[in-house]
Parts: sequence; structure tokens; C-alpha cells
Amino acid sequence: MAGILDGKGIAAKIKEELKTEIQQWKESNIQPCLAVILTGDDPASVYYAKAKQKVCENLGMEYRFINLPGDTGEEEILRKIGELNGDTTVHGIMVELPLPKHINSKKVAASILPEKDVDGVHPVNRGAILSGDEGLFPATPQSCIELLLRSGVQIEGKHVVIVGRGETVGKPLVFMILKYNATVSICHSKTPDLSAFTRQADILIVAAGRPKLVKADMVKPGTIVVDAGINETEQGMCGDVDFEEVQEIARLISPVPGGVGSLTTTLLLKNVLKGLAIQQKLSK
Amino acid sequence: MAGILDGKGIAAKIKEELKTEIQQWKESNIQPCLAVILTGDDPASVYYAKAKQKVCENLGMEYRFINLPGDTGEEEILRKIGELNGDTTVHGIMVELPLPKHINSKKVAASILPEKDVDGVHPVNRGAILSGDEGLFPATPQSCIELLLRSGVQIEGKHVVIVGRGETVGKPLVFMILKYNATVSICHSKTPDLSAFTRQADILIVAAGRPKLVKADMVKPGTIVVDAGINETEQGMCGDVDFEEVQEIARLISPVPGGVGSLTTTLLLKNVLKGLAIQQKLSK
Repeated sequence: MAGILDGKGIAAKIKEELKTEIQQWKESNIQPCLAVILTGDDPASVYYAKAKQKVCENLGMEYRFINLPGDTGEEEILRKIGELNGDTTVHGIMVELPLPKHINSKKVAASILPEKDVDGVHPVNRGAILSGDEGLFPATPQSCIELLLRSGVQIEGKHVVIVGRGETVGKPLVFMILKYNATVSICHSKTPDLSAFTRQADILIVAAGRPKLVKADMVKPGTIVVDAGINETEQGMCGDVDFEEVQEIARLISPVPGGVGSLTTTLLLKNVLKGLAIQQKLSK
Repeated sequence: MAGILDGKGIAAKIKEELKTEIQQWKESNIQPCLAVILTGDDPASVYYAKAKQKVCENLGMEYRFINLPGDTGEEEILRKIGELNGDTTVHGIMVELPLPKHINSKKVAASILPEKDVDGVHPVNRGAILSGDEGLFPATPQSCIELLLRSGVQIEGKHVVIVGRGETVGKPLVFMILKYNATVSICHSKTPDLSAFTRQADILIVAAGRPKLVKADMVKPGTIVVDAGINETEQGMCGDVDFEEVQEIARLISPVPGGVGSLTTTLLLKNVLKGLAIQQKLSK
């Protein structure tokens, strides 16, 4: 039976580190602050925005919530972001997605100051993923990596197989994992024989957005499995990996919920502090 | 015996297409123009700059060569780039590398207007590789893809194994190939058993910078091999693939010279026209 890659436990540990760091910033008279813009009232987005607020409160980070009406024009959103870009008391800006259809998300992403772009959506931060330069990177692929590192898994020299090539997880993960000297394969819906690849993985990371896609016969015994999927099904929430089956043969596996998803908010706030440090360096 | 992926022949074909396109721009009173900045007098760089000039002349593209002394300061280079950015009669800007050590190459790259950055070095263009957005991409990985496509090789559904994770070829190639729906594996010097990966390739692309690294026993019969290496050895120029050996078992193989390298200058000029089209769109 596989050991568990414990997202909740690791999140608790990182939160303690962030608390200390936030306290240190406060001692130098800086109150770290995250601003979240929500356009409209999509229930899931409202839920996530509230969840962030709670974690901010617990850690001593200021949380500024800007809820714009669903029919707000693009110009107005860009103006608001411009205001937050210029506000030196705001250190991280996150725009909740999805935006209403009349808004150009790419234009919005490009309008955020790169060093305040805690969601890692600005072209410059996307480019830094490729180049390995300093930058702010999206929380979900970071969660996958933190889960591994903080569970003592060695990544160097391993064959990491990624299933899924989405913008948020699969694609950035290729280079974020490559940095740790793994050999990386990336599979997707057009891969003719998916099992032939997943069965070769030392570390298998699944972000395909398909409930229980990965079954036991697709995994070699002793593999480490990270499940970045979150699917709402009639039987409740589940990942992209068939946990019941795969835990019988994997060495380590991350559950859903309680795995990758349990780390993302914490790592978003960690990005606020990373951004703040970059801002301080740039202002000198 | 393998068929040849004929870089020279394909370059000649693309040049004919570019000639026609340049003629069309001229008919709308626009003279396409590439500006090349060379700092210092590194003999290889001088050679490449001259080679570009010759191709520009043949195709009817204007070539503006700016040769700055080797001790030129960073400020002066940035000022020169700013001038070319603002000059609407210049449509592509390329800075020859390597720059002298006292110059910050990343700062220089970021100073070029993205839509004139024909070498694909600006962070925004690097980010576009990841996102699949419109942008200008580096010529060498494009050469690898053109060699395949124009030789009638189907990429979709194939397992493409890339050896080498350099900034110029290996890394951008991952996503440029992924766009064609291949399954992609990326190997490098920290891959413990390189042969185990290269032997699985339907299409093997090598950009490792190590002369004759890939031998016949590392390739499965019938593989398509693209060699992006250029190495000067005592026995003359050679690629990263042992051509003599590997041609015996590959289905198609690109020679060095006469393969990937024969396409790069042509594709750089193609980028000038792509940039020009983007500039025209943006100015409207």
C-alpha cells in the first residue's frame, strides 16, 4: 500500500514559515498585502476568494478584495489593475478566472506588473519558466514539486512523465521539473498509447482533467504518483488517478482532496512574499 | 541507407517564397529591412553577418549592418536599439552573440521591440513559445520543424525525443513540436541511460553540442534523425550524430553541413517578414 504525499501536512509546515516571514516584513514596517479582483459572482470564484481571505487572516497578510460587477468593461478592469500596480502598499495582484466573455484575459494578464503577478500569468513570467530566470510561477505546478521535495523524493535523474499539456499545469511543469535535472516526457490526448509512457515513469504527474484516467495497469509498481486533477463527479470529488486502484501498487501517491490542491493557496501567498522581495530589490 | 533531409534544397524553396513576398511588400511601397548589430570583431560573428548580407541581397531585402567597437558601453547599445525600435523603415533587429562580457545580454534582449525581435530572444516571444501565442521564434528549432514538414514527415502522434536542453534549440523545441501533437521526451547530460530514450524515438532531434554523440546502437531502425549540432573538430565540421554509422539504419537523416544549419539564415529572414506583418497589424 502506497504512502501518502500529504498536501495538508506540508501546507501547514509552509504556512508556519510564511507566518515567520510575514512577521519579519512587519518588523521592517512593511505589511504584505494581496489584492484579488473578482469580476461577477461565479459561486466557485467567490468560494476561492473567501478561502484566500481566511488563509491571509490566519497568516497576518493583508487581503484586499475588489469585487467588480459582471458587466464591468475591460477598460475599467485595466484601470483598476493600473491603480494596484502603482500602489506600493499592494504586493500581489490576482485576477480570478474565468473572466466574463467580453473581457480579453490575455490583455488583462499582460497588464499586471510582472513582479506583482502572483498567479504567474504575465508573458514575462511565462517566459521566465522557459529560461529558468527569476520570476513568479503558477501555484499548481509548484505544488506538485513541493509535494515531492518536502516528502524527500529525489527528482534528479528520474524519468518524470507528465500527462496533460494545459497552460496552467502541464506545460509550465515541463521546465519547472527539468530544472531539477529529471528526464521529462509529456503526453496528452493525442498520445496514441498512453500506457506505454505512464508505465515507464519513475514519477508520474497527472493533470489531464479527466476523472480517474490513470488505472493500476498503467503504472509500474513502486512509482510515485502526483495527481493534479480536481473533478466534480456524481460520486463526489476525485482526481485524474483512480486512487483506490493505484494506491495498491504505487510507492507514494497524492490523494484528492488533500494533495496538490491543499497547497495551492499557501503557495500563492508565498508568491506574494517572493514578489515583495523582488519589488524591494527593484526599488533600490 | 537513409534518405537525406535536404536542408539546402528546402532553403532554396523557401527563398523563392520569400522573394515573391518581398516583391509584394515592395509593390505596396514597403522595403523590408533587417538590421544587424555586431559589437566587436569576433571572426565567426563577422562571417555570419556577411552571410546574412549576401542572402538579403539575393532576395531583395535591405540589410543594415551596425558594427560597434568591442568596448562600446551597454547604454550605447541600448540607445542604438531604441533608435532602431523607433525607425519604421527597419522591420527586424538582430544582435549578434556572444556580446562582450561587460554587456548584460538579457537586458539587451529585453530592449528589442518584440515585433522586431527576429531572433526570438525577447521575454515576450519566449513566453509565446510556451503559450502557443503569435510571436517570433528562434530560427534553429524552426529549421528542425521545417526540415520534417517539408520532407513530408508526419509529426502528430509520433514520439519525438529531443537530446539537449539548451535555451536556443532544445527547450523551445519542446513546445514548438508539442504544437504538432507529438508526444515529447527531453533528455540531457543528467539522463542516466540516454540510449533507453533515444532508442524509443520515432523522430530523434539532437542538439547536445557534443560531436558524434549519437551512435548507431542508440537508434532504432527506421527512425527519422534531425541533427542540430555544429561542431568544429580536427577532422572538420560534424554534427552531434555519427552520420556514417546512423545513416545505415535511419529512415531519414539530416547531414551536417547541409541540414538544419542550411535553413537558419533563410528562416531568420522569414521572421523579418512575419515581424513586418505583425507591425503592420499593430499600426492599424
